[in-house]
Amino acid sequence: MESDSKSATAGKVLRCKAAICRNPGEPLVIEDIEVDPPKAWEIRIKIICTTLCHTDITYWKMKTGLVAAFPRIFGHEAVGVVESVGEHVEEFIVGDTVLPVFLPNCNECRDCKSQKSNLCTKFQNNYPPNMPRDGTSRFRDMNGEILHHFLWVSSFTEYTVVDVTHAVKITPEIPADKACLLGCGVSTGIGAAWKVAEVEEGSTVAIFGLGPVGLAVAEGARQRGALKIIAVDLNPGKFDIGKKFGVTDFINPKTCGEKSVSEVIKELTDGGADYCFECIGLASLMQEAFLSSRKGWGKTVILGVEMHGSQLSLNPYEFLRGRSVIGTLFGGIKPKSDIPLLAKKYLDNELSLDEFISHELSFQEINKAFELHQEGKSLRCIIWMDR
Amino acid sequence: MESDSKSATAGKVLRCKAAICRNPGEPLVIEDIEVDPPKAWEIRIKIICTTLCHTDITYWKMKTGLVAAFPRIFGHEAVGVVESVGEHVEEFIVGDTVLPVFLPNCNECRDCKSQKSNLCTKFQNNYPPNMPRDGTSRFRDMNGEILHHFLWVSSFTEYTVVDVTHAVKITPEIPADKACLLGCGVSTGIGAAWKVAEVEEGSTVAIFGLGPVGLAVAEGARQRGALKIIAVDLNPGKFDIGKKFGVTDFINPKTCGEKSVSEVIKELTDGGADYCFECIGLASLMQEAFLSSRKGWGKTVILGVEMHGSQLSLNPYEFLRGRSVIGTLFGGIKPKSDIPLLAKKYLDNELSLDEFISHELSFQEINKAFELHQEGKSLRCIIWMDR
Repeated sequence: MESDSKSATAGKVLRCKAAICRNPGEPLVIEDIEVDPPKAWEIRIKIICTTLCHTDITYWKMKTGLVAAFPRIFGHEAVGVVESVGEHVEEFIVGDTVLPVFLPNCNECRDCKSQKSNLCTKFQNNYPPNMPRDGTSRFRDMNGEILHHFLWVSSFTEYTVVDVTHAVKITPEIPADKACLLGCGVSTGIGAAWKVAEVEEGSTVAIFGLGPVGLAVAEGARQRGALKIIAVDLNPGKFDIGKKFGVTDFINPKTCGEKSVSEVIKELTDGGADYCFECIGLASLMQEAFLSSRKGWGKTVILGVEMHGSQLSLNPYEFLRGRSVIGTLFGGIKPKSDIPLLAKKYLDNELSLDEFISHELSFQEINKAFELHQEGKSLRCIIWMDR
Repeated sequence: MESDSKSATAGKVLRCKAAICRNPGEPLVIEDIEVDPPKAWEIRIKIICTTLCHTDITYWKMKTGLVAAFPRIFGHEAVGVVESVGEHVEEFIVGDTVLPVFLPNCNECRDCKSQKSNLCTKFQNNYPPNMPRDGTSRFRDMNGEILHHFLWVSSFTEYTVVDVTHAVKITPEIPADKACLLGCGVSTGIGAAWKVAEVEEGSTVAIFGLGPVGLAVAEGARQRGALKIIAVDLNPGKFDIGKKFGVTDFINPKTCGEKSVSEVIKELTDGGADYCFECIGLASLMQEAFLSSRKGWGKTVILGVEMHGSQLSLNPYEFLRGRSVIGTLFGGIKPKSDIPLLAKKYLDNELSLDEFISHELSFQEINKAFELHQEGKSLRCIIWMDR
C-alpha cells in the first residue's frame, strides 16, 4: 500500500519547465529548472493550471525591499496533483487533487482553532521569499542558481513544492480551471461577503472597485439575496461585466456632478448601504465607503491593500452612530475548511465561477496574461500547463 | 377602571420644585415651576431620584451652539412614577414605575424593529432642546418664562414630561437608586461589553478611561467571564476602585517609560487584547486602543465622544490583519427591551450596581453633586427628590 502510493519520481530531483522572472518587470522566461524533492512536512505538486492575480503583478514590478527577490517563480493561484510527499506528511497522499494557498493554516494554533480568525499564528511569516520552515528554496536553474519562491506557492512551474500548511485537498470533481480560481482573489471577495460582512437577504451593498475581487463580492452578495448591489468604478465598461455578477446600480465618480459618491449611495439606499466593500486599496476610498454606510449597523469591509501607505482618516462621530470598519485578508477564508466548502457550493450550483474566466492560454503564452492584465482586459486568465 | 387610574392632578398644570440652570456654568437654583399636563403620546412623571452624568456637565458648561439653551432643566438619569398620561398613551398607566431615557425607541421604524440597531430613525433628533413631536416646552418659571428641556428627559425637577418613546416601564421591585443608574452611563458600559463587543469567557479586555462608563464595561466583562481586564487611566487612585468591578491589571500611561500603552498591553495579553474600549473621547486614545487589539479578531469599541473634533487616523494595514472598530451610542442598548433585562439581571444577582453609588444627596444639595463630579470624587451621586 505504502509503496503503491509512491510515484516513480518520488525522492528524486525533478527537471521541468518553469517561467522565471529574472529581473523586476521583465517578461518571464520559460526555462528548464530542477525541483528538489519535498522535505519533511512538504509536498511536491504537479500543477494542472494556474492564473495571474494582481498581487503577482505588484511583486513582479517591485524593485526593492525585503519582499523583492529575484530570480523568482511567481504565481499563487493554481491547482494540481500531489506527485510526492515528504516525511511526516499524513494529510496528503500521492494523487490527491490540491490547491496550494498563500495563507498558512496549521490547524493547531489559537487562531486556526478559532472560528473568528483565518490568520495562522504559528506560521505567520513576514514575507520571506522561500519555504516557511527552513527559509530555503526547492528550485534551481540549470546553472545551479537558486530561484526564489513566491508567497509559499510559486505556481508558474510544472512542479512546485509547498508546505503542508499551504495546501488544501479538494474534490477532483470540480473542473481544474474553476478550482484554480479559489486560491486567492475570488475566494477573498466571496469570503468578505459571506464570512466577514455576513450579507443578508434584502440588504444593500456598495462595492468600491469592480475588479475580480469586487465582482466576487457582488457574486457573494447576490447569492445571499442582496436587494441592491451598487458598484463604484471609474471605468463605465465595468457595468456590463458587473451585471453578470448581480450588480444592480453603477456609479461613476466622474459623473456624479457636485454630489459625492457617498451622497449618491445614501440616496439610492434611503440613508446608506448596509455593507460597503473597499476593493482597491486607497485610504480616500475607504473613507468614502465608510461615509456611504448606514447608521445603526453599517459595516465597511476593507479588502484593498493601501497602495500609497496613507493613513485612514475617519470621523469618530460617525462611528458613534453604530457604524463599523473591519479589515480582512483572504476574506476571512480559512483555507483547509472553507475552500472545500466553496468547491461544493460551485458543484451544487450555489456559486457561479465560470464568468470569472475571461481568457485561456497555454503555459508558453504566459507573458500574454501579464499584458492582458495590465491592459485591464482580463478578469482571470487560465494558464494550462499541458497545452 | 379608567377613572380609577387617574390621579387627582391629571390634566392640570402642576406646581413643583425644579433645579434651574439660568446661565451656562452657573450653580442651579431651586425654584417653583409650572409643569404642563402631558399632550398626546406624552406622560408626566413624578421623579423619585436622579443622578448627574458627564453629559449634563458638558451641556451645562456649553455657552454657544444649537444645543445650548437656557434657562434649562438638566438631568437625564432618573426613575419615577407615572403621574398622568396624555391622549393615545397605551403603553403606560398611572402608577407605573418608569425610567425616562434620552434615546428614543418607537418600536415601529426599521431600526427599532431590527436587532442590530438601537438608533430609532423615526425620532432621531438633532438635539433640539424640547419635546420631540412639537418642539415646545412643558416647563415655565413663575414669571411665565419658558424653561428648556434637556435630552428629552429633564429630571432635575419633581415632575417632568416625556414622550412615550423616551420612557421605559420597569419592575418596581428594583430599588429606585439602582434603577436610576440604568438610564445612561452604566447601561452604556455594560451594553458595550455585552451587546457590541460580545465579550466571551476567557477573553482579554482593555479599557481606556476608568470613569463610570469604563467601570461598567469592566463589570460587564467580569460578568461575561473575561480572564484579564486591563484598565488604562492617568489617575493611579482608580485601580482600587477598578478592582471592585473586576479590573485585574492597571496601566498608568505616565509610568510606561519608553513603551507605548499598546506595547504594554500586547505584552500582558500575548499579542493584543481581544476587546478594547475607548471611554474618554480622544482620537489619540482611540488609535492606541486599536493598536492594542489583537490580530485576527481584535475589536475596538468607541464609546467616548471625541472632545476636540479630531479625526481618527488609523493604519489600513492593521485593519487587514482582521481588526475592527465599531462605535456605539448607549452601548447598543435598546431602551424598551434591554433596560428591563438589565433590571432583571440585577435582581437575579447577575449584575452588580451597588458599587456605582458613591454618594447620596437631597435635592436641595444638588449643586454639591456638580462639585463632587468636577473634583473627580464621585462615580454616581444619587439625588433623592423627597429628602
